[in-house]
Amino acid sequence: MADGIPRALGELAAHCGAQLIGDATVLICGIASIESAKNGDIVFADSEHKLSAALACSASAVIAGTFASAKSTTKPLLIAADPKLAFTRVAQLLIESPKKEGIAPSAQVHASAKAGLHVRIDPGVIVDERVQIGDFSVIGANSVIGTGVMIGEQCRIGPNVTIYPGTELGNRVVVQAGTVLGSTGFGYVRDERGRYQLFPQVGRLLVEDDVEIGANCTIDRGALDATVIRRGSKLDNMVHVGHNVQIGEDVVIAAQTGISGSSQIGSRAIVGGQVGIAEHVRVEDGAILGAQSGVPSNKVIRGEGVVFWGTPARPIKGFLKELAVLARLARKQDK
Amino acid sequence: MADGIPRALGELAAHCGAQLIGDATVLICGIASIESAKNGDIVFADSEHKLSAALACSASAVIAGTFASAKSTTKPLLIAADPKLAFTRVAQLLIESPKKEGIAPSAQVHASAKAGLHVRIDPGVIVDERVQIGDFSVIGANSVIGTGVMIGEQCRIGPNVTIYPGTELGNRVVVQAGTVLGSTGFGYVRDERGRYQLFPQVGRLLVEDDVEIGANCTIDRGALDATVIRRGSKLDNMVHVGHNVQIGEDVVIAAQTGISGSSQIGSRAIVGGQVGIAEHVRVEDGAILGAQSGVPSNKVIRGEGVVFWGTPARPIKGFLKELAVLARLARKQDK
Amino acid sequence: MADGIPRALGELAAHCGAQLIGDATVLICGIASIESAKNGDIVFADSEHKLSAALACSASAVIAGTFASAKSTTKPLLIAADPKLAFTRVAQLLIESPKKEGIAPSAQVHASAKAGLHVRIDPGVIVDERVQIGDFSVIGANSVIGTGVMIGEQCRIGPNVTIYPGTELGNRVVVQAGTVLGSTGFGYVRDERGRYQLFPQVGRLLVEDDVEIGANCTIDRGALDATVIRRGSKLDNMVHVGHNVQIGEDVVIAAQTGISGSSQIGSRAIVGGQVGIAEHVRVEDGAILGAQSGVPSNKVIRGEGVVFWGTPARPIKGFLKELAVLARLARKQDK
Repeated sequence: MADGIPRALGELAAHCGAQLIGDATVLICGIASIESAKNGDIVFADSEHKLSAALACSASAVIAGTFASAKSTTKPLLIAADPKLAFTRVAQLLIESPKKEGIAPSAQVHASAKAGLHVRIDPGVIVDERVQIGDFSVIGANSVIGTGVMIGEQCRIGPNVTIYPGTELGNRVVVQAGTVLGSTGFGYVRDERGRYQLFPQVGRLLVEDDVEIGANCTIDRGALDATVIRRGSKLDNMVHVGHNVQIGEDVVIAAQTGISGSSQIGSRAIVGGQVGIAEHVRVEDGAILGAQSGVPSNKVIRGEGVVFWGTPARPIKGFLKELAVLARLARKQDK
Repeated sequence: MADGIPRALGELAAHCGAQLIGDATVLICGIASIESAKNGDIVFADSEHKLSAALACSASAVIAGTFASAKSTTKPLLIAADPKLAFTRVAQLLIESPKKEGIAPSAQVHASAKAGLHVRIDPGVIVDERVQIGDFSVIGANSVIGTGVMIGEQCRIGPNVTIYPGTELGNRVVVQAGTVLGSTGFGYVRDERGRYQLFPQVGRLLVEDDVEIGANCTIDRGALDATVIRRGSKLDNMVHVGHNVQIGEDVVIAAQTGISGSSQIGSRAIVGGQVGIAEHVRVEDGAILGAQSGVPSNKVIRGEGVVFWGTPARPIKGFLKELAVLARLARKQDK
Repeated sequence: MADGIPRALGELAAHCGAQLIGDATVLICGIASIESAKNGDIVFADSEHKLSAALACSASAVIAGTFASAKSTTKPLLIAADPKLAFTRVAQLLIESPKKEGIAPSAQVHASAKAGLHVRIDPGVIVDERVQIGDFSVIGANSVIGTGVMIGEQCRIGPNVTIYPGTELGNRVVVQAGTVLGSTGFGYVRDERGRYQLFPQVGRLLVEDDVEIGANCTIDRGALDATVIRRGSKLDNMVHVGHNVQIGEDVVIAAQTGISGSSQIGSRAIVGGQVGIAEHVRVEDGAILGAQSGVPSNKVIRGEGVVFWGTPARPIKGFLKELAVLARLARKQDK
């Protein structure tokens, strides 16, 4: 479906560390699913079942797991321990986009802002005072980059993004359209009349290298200190991160999850969609929260690879047992 | 509350297929609720109780159900099998907005883009290469339309919308402000170091005729193939649709619901607010998911008109029984 | 962390109504957390434990509760009944931002629009016909203000905000980036073919004084009448408010909560994050809804200060008992 620069199959095999079975000179132009592949495409099969389909489709080559062998094939094969990963790497080579660069005439970049080499700033972008943008970074159309914001190298900021002052992004950070970074946190103090006064929200937002943030997310800056998202973490669309939250490295957070103020998510944690994490929670390294689960204030979720589910979140084994017991009792009621 | 071009009551009756009781020449200028109606307005009553209130208010005419009759009325009546539907149709006639057209001087439309007749493109809009916009379509201010996007006829795209490349909209598609169409899906593969690499997200997004999408939604394009939303489906605000999702015809999805990658929603399904649907789920035609329910990965939700509720989602009858059993046990505990 | 105009400690004490112990002439330049404070900062301590840390940090003064006394201190102290509130007030004085004003050359303000004194309109903003903007209000870059919108005095509208026609904001209203106000509500009527027709959504949105709305929220205008948010209410990020909803005074709503059409939230209610409130619900004054709870259509939630939790939402005491009973039954099963 996506066509790029044609590459020889041998080059692709070397790039993704796969073993080549067949003609190394076959030219590959694009990647595709097995269902939509056409001549010139490469596809992948991560099971023997899918391999049969892959061999029967119109693709010119197949990436498969170690279950595949020369005997059984009718097409050139790349054999890899993890065929999906190998396919991902091949795709990075094949669809590397030819990058435009330059500052659109209608972009407004303040005289005190500094843009590196090969930067691209699309039409309608507003870049405020003292902003810094690293080499090869791209700012999508109509985005607004606030005073003093620092953006590293090779970042890709989508269209209609807002980055408030006090935000600092590392290198290779991706932010999709409509996302708001560094917004004012939700912290109030009641006064003598019972009215809410905004607690000062003058902290910062630090986003480290290789973090990728989906569309229409909101990440608040810290109140007095910083909200931090560490290297390599990935956030899906519409994720909300409150003030002072600390997210570790290589964390994955699915869509529509919300993390309240001052909570901590340990490295390698996996957080499902629509999960709610209240204030001052600590999710420890590698813990897994099932979709829609809820963690009450001040709780600790502990256990590398342990899955928690439900509201309040509890180890999934117990939770499923509770569901089973309840279903049985309700059925008994019928008799 | 909304004033349009005055129309004779007889014309309105003909337009909505209602039976007129009373003076066909009465002029109607606007629609209103019973509470806010003034002279010249038309209101509707879908119960005898509301009819009394409608007859007592300042409106000049009332649309009512077949329960109403000439005897009991003090105002001209339009009698319709579905008075709310008749009111909706009358409103379409009365408040048809006089449409401005033309391309605002500050909109930037690429030379290779093609706009049809009577198109309106508001200030600050960015239209990229090879975009096509059909007749009578409107693009709201500061929206960004990516390379090669195709927009049908009579579409209304709100302000601050982002449409990524690879998106195709049918006719009469409505997209409200802040929504992001065709964003990159959330699909990652872990590499040897445990770091996440983005699986290629090079597919498309197809939105068919008469689909209406609320504000601040995010609809991801397919990974290798397409995300599809079929004719007539309606999405409320902040709905998230993941990559490769297939949504059938005439589906209704309430606010803040999220649908994960590769799930399928059958035609005429009704999905409540804040529902979470995990990956590879199949919600069959006409099934109903209650608000906040959650469907785990790979599950099938089956049954035209059957209501499911809870997480994991189960038929509502059993779910309510479980709630009742549990409440009883907790009360017993007290004694 | 935030530096402002230096102020004498005596002035700060008077401003926040605290009792000063120590040198009134000490100059304070900024506020900070205890962890990040440096010379010239003021910090606060709301417990004796934190007071020890505060006295040991580099700050030049400490705001503490009445538990603190002259004897125990090594730094100047401000003693206040509510030290966090006093700190908030001191911060308002110290970090009062020097405000730029004026209309950016690239902003497009319709000739019929009226802006008050000292207004600031940032680059790329589109202000449509007959808009009114009160004195000292600020409109962030690339925001779109629709026909006839009224904005009071001292409002702060963030970047990339969309305000649809029919919206009226009071004074000192804050709206963060990406939020959509006055969008079309989600109300449909099925026609004879089972297709959905939009019920007229021609009402208004009224937002009273001192309301603060987070980033990427969506607030629909009324269908025939008005959606109303009353004085002093605070909404976190990604909150959805449906058409005709009425929100009282001093209500707090945490992130990602959704309120469906025609529901009412009483004054001083506290609504947690990710709460779902269905149509025609009445949450009475001062009631508290725990995070992720769900209130089904037409229900009434009653009780000043009473906490409700779960879906369907029930008084928390009973809900916790149910959880305990269920956990016990599941454990018994194991034996």
